[in-house]
Amino acid sequence: MTANEFGQLFKITSFGESHGTALGVVIQGCPSGLEVNESLINNYLQRRRPGSLAWVSSRSEPENFEILSGVFEGKTLGTPIAITVHNTNQKSKDYDYIKNNPRVGHADDTWKNKYSHIDHRGGGRSSGRETLSRVIGGAFAEMLVKQSNLSTSIKSKITKLGPLVNSGDGVYPEGTEDLLINAKETGESYGGHINLVISNPIKNLGQPVFKKLKSELTSAMMSVGAVVGVEFEDSFENVLKKGTEFHDRATSKKYSGIRGGISTGEDISLTIAMKPTSSIKDIAKKGRHDPCILIRALPVLESMAYLVLADQILWSRLDNI
Amino acid sequence: MTANEFGQLFKITSFGESHGTALGVVIQGCPSGLEVNESLINNYLQRRRPGSLAWVSSRSEPENFEILSGVFEGKTLGTPIAITVHNTNQKSKDYDYIKNNPRVGHADDTWKNKYSHIDHRGGGRSSGRETLSRVIGGAFAEMLVKQSNLSTSIKSKITKLGPLVNSGDGVYPEGTEDLLINAKETGESYGGHINLVISNPIKNLGQPVFKKLKSELTSAMMSVGAVVGVEFEDSFENVLKKGTEFHDRATSKKYSGIRGGISTGEDISLTIAMKPTSSIKDIAKKGRHDPCILIRALPVLESMAYLVLADQILWSRLDNI
Amino acid sequence: MTANEFGQLFKITSFGESHGTALGVVIQGCPSGLEVNESLINNYLQRRRPGSLAWVSSRSEPENFEILSGVFEGKTLGTPIAITVHNTNQKSKDYDYIKNNPRVGHADDTWKNKYSHIDHRGGGRSSGRETLSRVIGGAFAEMLVKQSNLSTSIKSKITKLGPLVNSGDGVYPEGTEDLLINAKETGESYGGHINLVISNPIKNLGQPVFKKLKSELTSAMMSVGAVVGVEFEDSFENVLKKGTEFHDRATSKKYSGIRGGISTGEDISLTIAMKPTSSIKDIAKKGRHDPCILIRALPVLESMAYLVLADQILWSRLDNI
Amino acid sequence: MTANEFGQLFKITSFGESHGTALGVVIQGCPSGLEVNESLINNYLQRRRPGSLAWVSSRSEPENFEILSGVFEGKTLGTPIAITVHNTNQKSKDYDYIKNNPRVGHADDTWKNKYSHIDHRGGGRSSGRETLSRVIGGAFAEMLVKQSNLSTSIKSKITKLGPLVNSGDGVYPEGTEDLLINAKETGESYGGHINLVISNPIKNLGQPVFKKLKSELTSAMMSVGAVVGVEFEDSFENVLKKGTEFHDRATSKKYSGIRGGISTGEDISLTIAMKPTSSIKDIAKKGRHDPCILIRALPVLESMAYLVLADQILWSRLDNI
Repeated sequence: MTANEFGQLFKITSFGESHGTALGVVIQGCPSGLEVNESLINNYLQRRRPGSLAWVSSRSEPENFEILSGVFEGKTLGTPIAITVHNTNQKSKDYDYIKNNPRVGHADDTWKNKYSHIDHRGGGRSSGRETLSRVIGGAFAEMLVKQSNLSTSIKSKITKLGPLVNSGDGVYPEGTEDLLINAKETGESYGGHINLVISNPIKNLGQPVFKKLKSELTSAMMSVGAVVGVEFEDSFENVLKKGTEFHDRATSKKYSGIRGGISTGEDISLTIAMKPTSSIKDIAKKGRHDPCILIRALPVLESMAYLVLADQILWSRLDNI
Repeated sequence: MTANEFGQLFKITSFGESHGTALGVVIQGCPSGLEVNESLINNYLQRRRPGSLAWVSSRSEPENFEILSGVFEGKTLGTPIAITVHNTNQKSKDYDYIKNNPRVGHADDTWKNKYSHIDHRGGGRSSGRETLSRVIGGAFAEMLVKQSNLSTSIKSKITKLGPLVNSGDGVYPEGTEDLLINAKETGESYGGHINLVISNPIKNLGQPVFKKLKSELTSAMMSVGAVVGVEFEDSFENVLKKGTEFHDRATSKKYSGIRGGISTGEDISLTIAMKPTSSIKDIAKKGRHDPCILIRALPVLESMAYLVLADQILWSRLDNI
Repeated sequence: MTANEFGQLFKITSFGESHGTALGVVIQGCPSGLEVNESLINNYLQRRRPGSLAWVSSRSEPENFEILSGVFEGKTLGTPIAITVHNTNQKSKDYDYIKNNPRVGHADDTWKNKYSHIDHRGGGRSSGRETLSRVIGGAFAEMLVKQSNLSTSIKSKITKLGPLVNSGDGVYPEGTEDLLINAKETGESYGGHINLVISNPIKNLGQPVFKKLKSELTSAMMSVGAVVGVEFEDSFENVLKKGTEFHDRATSKKYSGIRGGISTGEDISLTIAMKPTSSIKDIAKKGRHDPCILIRALPVLESMAYLVLADQILWSRLDNI
Repeated sequence: MTANEFGQLFKITSFGESHGTALGVVIQGCPSGLEVNESLINNYLQRRRPGSLAWVSSRSEPENFEILSGVFEGKTLGTPIAITVHNTNQKSKDYDYIKNNPRVGHADDTWKNKYSHIDHRGGGRSSGRETLSRVIGGAFAEMLVKQSNLSTSIKSKITKLGPLVNSGDGVYPEGTEDLLINAKETGESYGGHINLVISNPIKNLGQPVFKKLKSELTSAMMSVGAVVGVEFEDSFENVLKKGTEFHDRATSKKYSGIRGGISTGEDISLTIAMKPTSSIKDIAKKGRHDPCILIRALPVLESMAYLVLADQILWSRLDNI
């Protein structure tokens, strides 16, 4: 059995194989009466789309979603919101090749060991294409978060990409385009660091023992494919300071967005380490492989963070008599 | 409402306030017929006990646990295992003082904001004393893991403690005792890095989309009080390498313990950043405050990792027909 | 929020409004490698279809299902199985009428009170059309049950329908057709008793305290629209006997299919009371209303029973070390 | 694994074997700030106590409960409420006898088949003694229900007991005492019908598809040992009426307490069939066996109904934006 749900009270169920008929999501727990912003969904889909950056990927898949249920006259019904995206760009010719040549560095073999029967046509559920379901769910989560507190927002950017450092306000470092065009040609790939900031979060989200906000957020980030490290602020460096320095007012305010597992209302900042994609060398040159997935990962990571907040907003309704 | 459960199929429910009558745990999902090793429980309790290192803490609390249910003639019954530890060392004299003087840097105020009515006698559920429940649960998880694969083991050690580095095999760096005795006297505190290694994990644990083994382990570590960062191997540094270098056989094997969210059977290594305790200066000098909680955190972190493995062992029974 | 899931380890998520774009189901927990029998799904859909009995209903909706995910080359992948049925027969002309005239005896008003914003086009989620999702899920549950034990089968029949009694082997009493044709003309409706028998159930299903097999089965039956009573065998009558008589070997074997909450392997027999449909008199004469829903309920009740067994088959994998 | 939890947002975890060290319950989800009425707990314990009716049972076990956590200064903390009752009346001399002589009609053998290793000292978890945990949980559920709506109340009484009928207001029929004293002497046992009425329930409880209030209540009743049938009002008789008669205003109001799965605010009435205890003849004469458990079951059934309402009260907080 595979776990395909995220969240408990605000919950998404993700389904679909990369080369199957359709992918999709069922969103449960979204309260009745929420206004649905379809252009927000489109915006997320556009940002995570392969080929959105011409220089990064050779694929171009406009993603058309269809709302099957749960929305009526522009508002949520409180019933499950089912949304599908049909697969239109599967290249069946690749099919038999992959069947007999499990891809190096991919999860094909671990799946095969675990489940015996697998869909070998390009990743199945382990494909990054699964994140379609997450960003659609994330769009609804953002709607609920904004409905609860209009001033909350989540923004992410790439602060380090291989050798490059992002010192400005851009989404990625200067020089990224050249680096990746070159990488595409030479069969190279790059990872890096992403900074994600939750501005003006609602107070009192998260729980003090096991569903600490820091634990929920970290787990959410780590559920994304190539993520291999998460820290709040520059923790790995900062924790080596003396306590009197670490807890000094000037520094400590950076950490104060979560205390005892619960949001204080101040900003929360995470740094996420993502590894270089495993498609390198000759494999990367042929076929439609991204030399770097960090740019497309940004809307996915933001979606996961919104999903955590939406779930905790509902949990917090149960706190007091 | 507060979340006090960890795991789904192998699940612990933690209860108890630090100054209430008792703390305890209910362990559900432990299959019937498992031999119970009480000395293992004692060993965990001993390692996380305040005062186990004379030079670290002024408290000394021998923890006597009582098994109320779920075990009969030395074996689990498959029914809930309820275990309590009564509180014997509460100092009621501190009581009124704390009531009117919420402690700086603690979660007292966030709790008060969220739940209105709180137990102000020294942390309540946000006290580190809650981890008693976790190590008892962890001991049972270890029994189940070992029953499934005798060669699996989990070991952790402090690799950096403030200015100190642990280059040897010891649990903490050389010089730790002097550093902490001095810290205790001067009102200083220290954080650091912990390395936790899962040796010979069972293959095929974890799930490919949302309960990825890396996600479950990270969430488990982050549920522990002062943890503020988790990475697999030295991810934050390594991901900045080129893909051709990162995925080079010599390096990549370090990461190969989890692929596509699923354990491969190879060792898994995590680094955990823990911040210095917030009791510093005058507050730290009076009262029974630890200048460093990393040593006592080791059995807690190991317990959390065993709990993740035990849960996933049960999940994996559902994979195939 | 509305609850739209049934089962825990073998779980269906039902979605869709009666007059929305599509209804459907996501089946989670179905192990990998199960052979998929599509004609079984069709058979369930056909049996619950409105208009399957020409004399009962004026509607005729051939239900075409589409498998979106989770099945590959005729076998389950262990991933979520998403299946949709598009709505093709919505009469939009009825739309505005119902909006301003909530139907007597239906749940329109309770929904409105609870959720504020509702889909008023003919029942939304409270429509019997939702049971489409259940029978599709039930078909997969039956596949898993049969894979575990080929000789298990579940059969139901109507034993009493208003004034009629079914003493034979038929699915409904003799005289049913005439009674219902007449009812349709006169605006009458009928309820009755259904007997459902689980033959040769797998042993050791169900749990001794809270997920007793009797509790799970009864809850499943009661989740179906018009069901208002459930008894094992003729319990309401039999429990008034003296214990020495009740537990007499000849009688007690009827009850022995479940003991202490757990299946013994012997047959299990339930009687279910369903009330007459609430569309009566003038309302029943116009529009497409069934004067009796018991016949169409049979595959739904069987599906719910299979779903309980499938879930418990997976639970039983966790019993012992 | 055994399921020992009831409820989802307001949830009890029941633990303890009948002859183990202690039984108990952990109550999760009870919001912070609820005033705790300890005499209500005592009252429930007293009503379900063996020996509360001198003529029914030879045991007399005053049950002393201890609150270990979750309550402070007379109010709930929002943290888990753990409560234990130690076993003081285990007769160890019976021990070896039962080991070698599994009791007829009890669940000893089904447990043994399912779990291999069992506690054979008098029922273990399948003992009726487990219901201690339920009535303690039920008392807290009642506190929450009353806090939400002071006028809600749940009352049950025995309407039929073997040959006797209760036409008055008493908890059991006239003649019960004589019947049971005689049964005790002759090794007879009796079952019967219980009527449980929820007066003035809060509106809008329950959910329209799978957690219908009728389904939740039935499941709750059926989770109690000897219950073998549940109907709303006299359903099994009434559903055989014509629809025009059944839905006649005069009759239908009896059923109107739940519509579309959701409470309307009107009273809800259930009838519950409980079978005669299986300890009959010589076995019943020696030892401490009740010839009828219906009287002691009343507080247990009421508790289960309160637990359903408390859970649904919390669910209903999630309905709307």
